[in-house]
Amino acid sequence: MKYELIIIGGGPAGISAGIYVGRLKVRTLLITKEFGGQIGKKTVDIENYPGFESIKGPELIGKMEKHLRTQEDVNIEMDEVLKVEKKDDGFVVRTKSGKEYESMAVIFASGADPRPLEVPGEKEYDTKGVSYCALCEGPIFKDKVVAIIGGGNAGFETAIFLSKIVKQIYILEFGEKVKAFADNQKIVEQTGKARVITNAKLKEIKGEDFVKYIVYEDRETGEEKTLEVQGVFIEVGRMPATAYAKGLVEFNERDEIKVKPETCETSTPGIYAAGDMNEGIFKQVITAAGEGAKTALAAHNYIQKKKSDQVS
Amino acid sequence: MKYELIIIGGGPAGISAGIYVGRLKVRTLLITKEFGGQIGKKTVDIENYPGFESIKGPELIGKMEKHLRTQEDVNIEMDEVLKVEKKDDGFVVRTKSGKEYESMAVIFASGADPRPLEVPGEKEYDTKGVSYCALCEGPIFKDKVVAIIGGGNAGFETAIFLSKIVKQIYILEFGEKVKAFADNQKIVEQTGKARVITNAKLKEIKGEDFVKYIVYEDRETGEEKTLEVQGVFIEVGRMPATAYAKGLVEFNERDEIKVKPETCETSTPGIYAAGDMNEGIFKQVITAAGEGAKTALAAHNYIQKKKSDQVS
Repeated sequence: MKYELIIIGGGPAGISAGIYVGRLKVRTLLITKEFGGQIGKKTVDIENYPGFESIKGPELIGKMEKHLRTQEDVNIEMDEVLKVEKKDDGFVVRTKSGKEYESMAVIFASGADPRPLEVPGEKEYDTKGVSYCALCEGPIFKDKVVAIIGGGNAGFETAIFLSKIVKQIYILEFGEKVKAFADNQKIVEQTGKARVITNAKLKEIKGEDFVKYIVYEDRETGEEKTLEVQGVFIEVGRMPATAYAKGLVEFNERDEIKVKPETCETSTPGIYAAGDMNEGIFKQVITAAGEGAKTALAAHNYIQKKKSDQVS
Repeated sequence: MKYELIIIGGGPAGISAGIYVGRLKVRTLLITKEFGGQIGKKTVDIENYPGFESIKGPELIGKMEKHLRTQEDVNIEMDEVLKVEKKDDGFVVRTKSGKEYESMAVIFASGADPRPLEVPGEKEYDTKGVSYCALCEGPIFKDKVVAIIGGGNAGFETAIFLSKIVKQIYILEFGEKVKAFADNQKIVEQTGKARVITNAKLKEIKGEDFVKYIVYEDRETGEEKTLEVQGVFIEVGRMPATAYAKGLVEFNERDEIKVKPETCETSTPGIYAAGDMNEGIFKQVITAAGEGAKTALAAHNYIQKKKSDQVS
């Protein structure tokens, strides 16, 4: 078998795992679509990764990627994993580009994807006004009017970022109250560009070639209302990117992978899950990196044991 | 109550917890003897904290301390905690300088201390040739002959560091084989200054004003042997620094604090333990920092709930 270990994912969890196994000389393949995961797209500076008082997400991930690339025993493939299955005494990993890789153990660390709202027009106008990444697409909306769907911290951080670009912002919150930290609410208020609308249920996104307006229901009165906007940023949470793992490991009711938190091992021996994919309660850059290290050390122990079992 | 939270310890776990609660505006006191814990004394560069390819321990801890000090809501006291006890609905923390502080919740993050060997002469010659910190005291032994007790990674890393200072090194390992990584063994061999002695049980440290020689038993032959050395570095592991927590929380058989790994909460509601003090299997800088963040978020939730219970 060419590889002892395959790591899926290039965010803080996968990179941390790669650094650890690299230092332990585990023959490793790391497969990822891109480096950075969510922090590569973060609209506000990261101020809670100990050691960096304030750093832009892409800059932190750049440092981490460079750190990973110092590990000679870790090969990197830029590709997307479609399926992982058991094979003989190990696993086979199939990718979008049609490749197959085998290994003794696998670490799942591909994070979480934006959760769609599933309203009419959302798919149709994706990249035509509908966006899940303000950092990527924000600049297109210079001096335009936009709506942000979701009144949590992600929504408010998006508003803070966009306030420097766009003309006007509506923040639509489904509940009675926004859930963002008081600090974030204050900063958004100070921009003077944002209007928060609570009890608002988005019903439809409409337009021609590009988004032109949204329709929402005022949940207090039941009334349908319309807002003219050229952009819609959807910030209603994330869902673990676990499609390739279906049928292989156990999940909880939130579609997160069940793990033993001490080692992040899943219900299937030889498979580990770190970061936003697992059922850990706190999803932070530093906790993901810590879990990456844990999975690496646990996978290394597992591989060493397998190898000594094979010899004896 | 002046403080909502007290954090005990200034290593990566305590600092990370402090950064997190500071950002959540929790009124916090962090008490520590010193900043850095073990990484402040590390003899080799740290190459496995994601984001820093290679950094000296004291430099990394310096960055972390500076990061912590940006948090306005976290007060810092340089002091040693002697006892933590329950009081009314919270806790009271007593320090060596005779102070008493109260809080609703406490995070234990004071790491682990070097484990003594408990052989005759060890206490007598402490700081007179016996050392538990090569980085602190190594330079005293310039061009001298020293023994390192312990053939694990810590012992070999100490040898790598000391090889640039001392004339000659003996590494004494109790077992049949040294346990250090192959990489570390190779580097030590290449220094040409070190002799590894396996099956060696240290019996006594002797000298006059200062260490002059050590006596060990060759465990294969039972023979007692003597080595002339001017320094003895003890690297036989660490023990959690949990004295102040006795009677307050549950411990495991290794004297580590039992925790729920998802939140690092102990058996006593309102008390959390992060890093080397708890029963986590993998003790790394990055895992300690991750756990620090977890305890901070969990303690914040606990404090918020307490406060809302008091109001209602």
